[in-house]
This record gives sequence, structure tokens and C-alpha cells, in this order.
Amino acid sequence: MIDPVFLDTPLYRCEALEPGLGCTVSIKLETANPVRSFKARGTEVVASLLAGTGPRAVVCASAGNLGQALAWSGRGRGLEVTVVASRFAPAAKLDHIRALDARLELVDGDFEAARERAAALARYDGIRLVEDSADIETCEGAATIGLELAGTAGSFDAVLIALGGGALATGVGHVLKAWAPDVEVICVQPLGAPAMTHSWRQRRVVTTDSAHTIADGVAGRRPIPAVLEDLLLVADDAVLVSEVSIIAGMRMLLDRAGLVVEPSAALGIAAILEDRERFAGRHVVTIVCGSNVDLEAYRRWVGAAPTHRS
Amino acid sequence: MIDPVFLDTPLYRCEALEPGLGCTVSIKLETANPVRSFKARGTEVVASLLAGTGPRAVVCASAGNLGQALAWSGRGRGLEVTVVASRFAPAAKLDHIRALDARLELVDGDFEAARERAAALARYDGIRLVEDSADIETCEGAATIGLELAGTAGSFDAVLIALGGGALATGVGHVLKAWAPDVEVICVQPLGAPAMTHSWRQRRVVTTDSAHTIADGVAGRRPIPAVLEDLLLVADDAVLVSEVSIIAGMRMLLDRAGLVVEPSAALGIAAILEDRERFAGRHVVTIVCGSNVDLEAYRRWVGAAPTHRS
Repeated sequence: MIDPVFLDTPLYRCEALEPGLGCTVSIKLETANPVRSFKARGTEVVASLLAGTGPRAVVCASAGNLGQALAWSGRGRGLEVTVVASRFAPAAKLDHIRALDARLELVDGDFEAARERAAALARYDGIRLVEDSADIETCEGAATIGLELAGTAGSFDAVLIALGGGALATGVGHVLKAWAPDVEVICVQPLGAPAMTHSWRQRRVVTTDSAHTIADGVAGRRPIPAVLEDLLLVADDAVLVSEVSIIAGMRMLLDRAGLVVEPSAALGIAAILEDRERFAGRHVVTIVCGSNVDLEAYRRWVGAAPTHRS
Repeated sequence: MIDPVFLDTPLYRCEALEPGLGCTVSIKLETANPVRSFKARGTEVVASLLAGTGPRAVVCASAGNLGQALAWSGRGRGLEVTVVASRFAPAAKLDHIRALDARLELVDGDFEAARERAAALARYDGIRLVEDSADIETCEGAATIGLELAGTAGSFDAVLIALGGGALATGVGHVLKAWAPDVEVICVQPLGAPAMTHSWRQRRVVTTDSAHTIADGVAGRRPIPAVLEDLLLVADDAVLVSEVSIIAGMRMLLDRAGLVVEPSAALGIAAILEDRERFAGRHVVTIVCGSNVDLEAYRRWVGAAPTHRS
């Protein structure tokens, strides 16, 4: 169901990162495709099923990447795609959604406000709501990353996964627990948007009133109960990292690996930077999940000066 | 013979580039691997053959990328690798060669001086000289890119290939002429390092006294006669582009595609920018062949300000 352009993404050891991190690091690169994130693995499944017998109109809320992916997957299958996003989402993401011929509706609030509006639109118009992480297709799509990683099982000890709504973590985690149970599944979330991590730790849904992080792709506040249930089954840990570490991670990925990434994609490196002892001597895979970033903001975060070589 | 980490690299249409270029553009991305260039496809073949029955010591001249690739391929097979490079090669390339445990010898001159020194070392020490583009294994390795492109033949009209020594162009060109003869094979070289292009046009080896380009990976001055012979068989055209266009190409690949590339990898985009009419309405593949670049120089070239959206 999934266009091959989104599958079998590069997985490679990046030695230049290792002196700064104290462990063996491999990158699973999900940015070298038409939508520059892993999200199309899921929307391809969604759109394929709809294109068969389902409704022709769909709506989703998106922090930006799901919207691009659904727009891409829907366009090729004749679906009418509406994306609801926060007007504070990165302009690059909003521009890409428009360029893919989707209808884009902006809300004044944050991602949770977009979720409410998308659900309301679906109800009023009687069209299909695609709900990231709640709709199992979005998790199944992400799970194909797990299949690709499990194909190389035995060669790594832990995988670091950006945690937002939970589709990536539950999808990849589910496959790894089944096919490579010795691999530690570690979810990483910003300290400024910790709802799902707090929920995982307390084994019950914990919401927050606000989210403050540059990692716009994972800035949710209201975890979905069914997704938390899945996450409790497959995650070995969930950790929180600071904004400073996220920026340091973005800078390392640029300086040492030549990769421009969005903040969410640097969460794994940030987790290593914050707990080197935990990872010392181990082989860690980090999923670089997206590169849709406003370059102006990127330059402000990462700075103009190269960091010193280690 | 080739480690799978270097094969089946991403090939994807990049619509964000298209408004600025006036044609359909797909990227064949050769940078998401442990040496960040396509060169390891060839050195894997070289090192595999040597590891069987051949000598254990090898030497090559390199502008930087071949040296990294040979060091990587040789290290895993117990070969002693010596790389001769110009001391003016990008520090990032030289650092990576050292980090891969190769012996690095620097010469005061340019790439051609490194070639002379490497050949002399091979003679004196009786060790195997790996000569980029002249040794057929380096072309065969590059040719696997052609096989991957030919697997999608019919979907594109032209391929733009950075032209330096000629391994990439002859390898890819040979396969395309055999398997996808309707695809136009266009080589691109900087105006400041035009020796092989002049040679191709005049159908005889033309050398230059100097090379002046930021595209260090393709800054040769003395084409190898046998490689020119092959190039005359497989290239449909060879074009020269300005430094300004190379920088504009690098900037577009950053701003629109989120890719940090070395100058040689932007030659294809530069060629489109310089002749939009030629490519208007066609589907063009450009091989993004390397991303080993000194970030300080990169920032100087590409600048801190994002370009305007089109």
C-alpha cells in the first residue's frame, strides 16, 4: 500500500557523531522523501484504504507533517484533503501543505485546538477524520520503520524515538517488542511538552495546560487513552529533554552528520547528550523523523558559528 | 561486493525545487551513508577484490571523498590504506580520512600533484595504486547508481551528472545508454575546471594549467585518455556552469530541499538554472553526489539569509 519512495530509508552508522556522544550511533533517516518526514508511511495506508471503497473526503489536524503527508497521499488517489493546523505552525510546513493542493484551515490556538476543529468539521460535514496515533493505520505505517530496523536486529541495543501523539513510538515499539525484544525502546519528549511521558510514568492520562517547546511536531497536551495503553505495552522508558539539548542535538546533526533537521528529529541525540552514562559503549539507533523547518528559525537556534571539533 | 548501506539510495521527486527551476526534478541522494558520498560504491568493489587475493596495502590520490571511501572500505577488510591529498582540500574531508585510520599524506600542490605523488608512492613501495576513474572498479561502483536509475526508466528524461575524473559519468552513463537509451546523459563541470568538458567537446585530451572552483571534488586538470574514450561513448552532452550558479544551486538545495551539499553536488541544479529553456517541462534527475563540506565555507557561500520563496 505504501509507495516505495517512503520505504527502506537509509540506516547507517555515523561515526562523526560518536566522539561527542560516547556511544555507537546509527541514524534511520526519514527525511529523504517527497514530504520530508516519516508520516507518509501512515497516510499511504490511510489513503490506499479510502481510495478503495471509502469516502473521498478526509480531514486531519496536523502540527504540519501529517498534513503534508496526507495531502501527498490523497492527491495521488483523488481524495479531497482538508488539513487543520495552528496558525503558529512553521510557515514551511503550512506552505508545503498548500503546495500539495490540500485545503488548509488555520486555527488561532495550538495543536489541540486544531484537533477539536478537525473533529468538528468531520462531524458537520460527515467526512472521514484521520486522527494521528488514534487511527491504527497511522501506527501501522510507522511500524514499517520497525520492520526495517528489526531486519538488522542484533546489531543495536536501543532505539530512540520522538514521542508526540505516539504513532511513531507505538508502531515502531510494537514491532521491536515482537521481533527484537532485546532492543530497548526509549521514547523522548521535550520537557516543555511532557504530557505523554507523564502519562506513561503514571500509567494514566495526564494532560497539561500548555506546551512550550521549539519541537512543534511533538507539542501535544492531551494524550489519547488508547494510544497510552499501547505505549505502556511497548515502551521501556520515556525521558524528557531540555530545549538546550534539543538545540545542541540539531547542531551536532548539522556539524557532524551534515543533516538539517527539525527539532523533533533531534530528540534522540538530545537524550544521549543528557545521559551519556546510560548509553556509554552501547549501539543506539535514533530515528531522524523530519526535516521540515523554517530556515530562519533554524539559523537562529543553531547559530552561524560552527562548533569546535572534538 | 558492495555493502548494502551504500546501495538503493533515495530517489525522490522534490516539488519544492520545481517552481524555481521550471521542470520536474528528482534527486538521487548519495549522501546518507557512512562516508557521505557515492565513492564507496567503487571502493567497496576495489577492496573486496583486494581482500580476496590481492595486496594488503593500497594508495590513492583523492580530492577527499575517494580517500574517505577507500579508508572505510579498506578498514573493514584489513587493508593498509594510504591517501594522498592536497593540503588545500577541505578540512572536513581530511579529518574524516584520518578518523577512518588511513595514513594521510598531504602535498603542497593541487589534486594533480597528489595524483603524481600517489603514483610515485605506489612505484617506490610496490603497493597497489587505486586510480579514480582509470581503475574500472571505480566506474563499476558508480555504475550501480545507473542500475538503480534504470530500474525506474521511462519516468525521467535526463540525468545530470557531476563531471570530474569521469568515474561517475562513465559508470552511470554506460548503464543508462544500455538500459535506458532515451535518457539524456548530461555531464556538468565548473567553468573554472573545464578540462574534461573541453576534452569531450574536442574529442581529444585537453589539459589546463590551473583550476579555480569551489567544487573541489571535480577540480582536475588532466583528463585520463581511457576515461575520455569512455565518456565520448556515453555522454550526450557536457556543459560548464559558473561559480555563481553552483552557489545558487547549493542555496536552493538547502532552502527548498533541506539538503546541505558540497559544491560538486549542486552542479546539476546549476546546469538547470543556467539553461531553463532546455529543461522546461522535462523530468530531470540530478545525482546529489556528496555532502562533505567545511561548514564555515558553506555558510560563507550560502549566506545566513534565507532566499525568498517563489
